[in-house]
Amino acid sequence: MPRARAAVLDAYGTLFDVGALAAACEAAFPGRGEAVNRLWRQKQLEYSWLRTALGRYRDFWEITKDALEYACRTLGCALDAATRERILAAYHTIAAMPEAHAALARLRDLGVPRYIFSNGTLSMLQAAARSSGLDALLDGYLSVDEEIRQYKPSAAAYAFVLRQLGLPAADVLFVSSNFFDVAGAKNAGLRVVWVNRTGAPPDRLGLHPDHVVADLTAVAALAGG
Amino acid sequence: MPRARAAVLDAYGTLFDVGALAAACEAAFPGRGEAVNRLWRQKQLEYSWLRTALGRYRDFWEITKDALEYACRTLGCALDAATRERILAAYHTIAAMPEAHAALARLRDLGVPRYIFSNGTLSMLQAAARSSGLDALLDGYLSVDEEIRQYKPSAAAYAFVLRQLGLPAADVLFVSSNFFDVAGAKNAGLRVVWVNRTGAPPDRLGLHPDHVVADLTAVAALAGG
Repeated sequence: MPRARAAVLDAYGTLFDVGALAAACEAAFPGRGEAVNRLWRQKQLEYSWLRTALGRYRDFWEITKDALEYACRTLGCALDAATRERILAAYHTIAAMPEAHAALARLRDLGVPRYIFSNGTLSMLQAAARSSGLDALLDGYLSVDEEIRQYKPSAAAYAFVLRQLGLPAADVLFVSSNFFDVAGAKNAGLRVVWVNRTGAPPDRLGLHPDHVVADLTAVAALAGG
Repeated sequence: MPRARAAVLDAYGTLFDVGALAAACEAAFPGRGEAVNRLWRQKQLEYSWLRTALGRYRDFWEITKDALEYACRTLGCALDAATRERILAAYHTIAAMPEAHAALARLRDLGVPRYIFSNGTLSMLQAAARSSGLDALLDGYLSVDEEIRQYKPSAAAYAFVLRQLGLPAADVLFVSSNFFDVAGAKNAGLRVVWVNRTGAPPDRLGLHPDHVVADLTAVAALAGG
């Protein structure tokens, strides 16, 4: 396999550990934090897909707030302004996955440029990269918010990445822990690594990753050709 | 408000009681039926939205089977062929919501034609209409599977309904218990009733129904002008 000319990695759950969000929910709603956090994430994704289908884009930060409001209302958790701000602030204090620094450093040492590609806005991505300390290891940030305003797994989103990089799909190694994102990248012809941290079954979408790994450690070897 | 020239109603959860599906899951997996059924439904919708975004249509019966497989694998429930067929058979023995017969009969008495519009295939819809006894009260079945092959809430799906009926959007009263469907119909300009049976909060999609009711009883009055 030829060496990848760029590695493009998803953000939340792939490079960034979203554990801080669960912890913030649990601190706000003891005993119900896990339920809030799970429904929050489910609705955040659901709103991204529905708004794309409806042609009614709203940026990911706004969708994230909408989803949190919905989750708390559904579960009967009172979300006053101070609590909401405290929970949302976890997005700006997010940590890297334990192996992310080493994995990006190996890609750098191989000469493979490293980009984030996310539904998140540029300001969300830059804040998370700074707080996690990954910023020095990244060559750039790509967001659906910049120009496309359609969420993953819309084909337009991945086409945007290739245009920005000026590379053909087969030269890009795409890495995500989210199966819908794996499916979207594969649908667009990229070479795709699924980071399956939890041993989850693959979703049944008729699209399959080229590689499956348990964490980011093996990504550099896969990029190296 | 002018009298509606057609009433278009969603199928599952709106006209049809999906309780038989939950019961079939519980019979197959005692104590875990509710979890299986909930994840099954979540994945069924998720696959419909993702496949539309990916441009990889697969009909709703296939998606329903895929989602059941995924839910069982995720939850560690062994789904052999016989168990799968038993659970899926519940789709063909589905009942009407308790008030559905009377509500459709009142629309008929007002002279308002009544159509189902669903993600489900025509054969799924016809089987459910027969088993529930609603078939005699319906003027027709409209499915995204007939021609559009994009799932709700894609704008193309609702445009197809208006084309089939030969009516402008404002003359159609659309009825659904699923908020994403309410949003899709509203996005297409229809007059929309949200049947909120559970007192759920509305989803935050920037679109709002014209009417909210607790069940189908008031629909005829809303259609009557």
